[in-house]
Amino acid sequence: MRDEPEGSQVLATLFRDARTFSYWQDRPVSETLVEAAFELACLGPTSGNCLPMRLVLARSPAVKERLLQCVSSGNYEKVRTAPVTAIVAYDREFFELLPRLYPHTDARGWFTSNAALVEETGLRNSSLQGAYFILALRAQGLDCGPMSGFDADKVDAAFFPDRRYRTNFLLNIGYGDRGRLRPRLPRLGFDEIAHWE
Amino acid sequence: MRDEPEGSQVLATLFRDARTFSYWQDRPVSETLVEAAFELACLGPTSGNCLPMRLVLARSPAVKERLLQCVSSGNYEKVRTAPVTAIVAYDREFFELLPRLYPHTDARGWFTSNAALVEETGLRNSSLQGAYFILALRAQGLDCGPMSGFDADKVDAAFFPDRRYRTNFLLNIGYGDRGRLRPRLPRLGFDEIAHWE
Repeated sequence: MRDEPEGSQVLATLFRDARTFSYWQDRPVSETLVEAAFELACLGPTSGNCLPMRLVLARSPAVKERLLQCVSSGNYEKVRTAPVTAIVAYDREFFELLPRLYPHTDARGWFTSNAALVEETGLRNSSLQGAYFILALRAQGLDCGPMSGFDADKVDAAFFPDRRYRTNFLLNIGYGDRGRLRPRLPRLGFDEIAHWE
Repeated sequence: MRDEPEGSQVLATLFRDARTFSYWQDRPVSETLVEAAFELACLGPTSGNCLPMRLVLARSPAVKERLLQCVSSGNYEKVRTAPVTAIVAYDREFFELLPRLYPHTDARGWFTSNAALVEETGLRNSSLQGAYFILALRAQGLDCGPMSGFDADKVDAAFFPDRRYRTNFLLNIGYGDRGRLRPRLPRLGFDEIAHWE
């Protein structure tokens, strides 16, 4: 790690050198690495430890084919060629597990008659968990390609016909082809979006 | 780093040993560290590079007092004693920056007449960015305490009266008091929430 502070290479892997990939090497993804990433990601905080994220890890050609019917034309080849595409969803009944996950109180009542709060809490916290998962996959040496360019209602109909789960985003997982990356898009500066008060 | 694989200590800092803190050491937080964490977090992926997260970093007693009027009684002392509390919000006009952030196409039209898509995209992507920020703060040696136990409408009224920004969650930042941690709450296992297809 040369003169860099300890851990600098890991932060490069997680943030600085990491990119969103559209093209994939023809190299399989180990279940063990993905499951190790999940174990790390699951440790990240969610509100009231509600842990609403649910995952379908699509890799068989038949399942990929079902998923491909739901994605935009610009994302078709990305999903088709990725070794794994995770459907990152949330469980609309996540609160039923709160007596086990958050035993301080019976928190189910916060949600049972408030469908809007269920959706907002599910979307917020499954997004947090999805972000932890992206960084944890990168920590395992894997590359990611998260996507919103698809029809979530169609994915729900194809994969979650009982409407219990709601699709949040899709996440391609594999080893990216760095040779086909475009330059990184610009970011916003601290002073543009934050201030101390 | 003994016999552990390279980066293992960083992953412990980010995930394994990290906890959500409610009690804080009386130790100031450097602006430099928070801004360095922001720079890392801003590199994480968002859909169409939309980067909707906006931050108010509250630390002065007067600003803390305004914020304390909006938090639940159970979170009052956590916010009062944290050296910094970030209001993690999203900008409902984030799409106006897309010609600069996502120059491949003029993506503003995806959002201009679809307020529901603005809210969903803002909530999803500011949550992703908030999660990157939590892990990046931890990478700087800081501790976090994210919270949903507050009245977001009140925070909006107090801090964003023009309704352009919407509060997503609050994030206490400081150096946590490990001596007052309770045991970590249980997590869900891979087989409970995920499957390969």
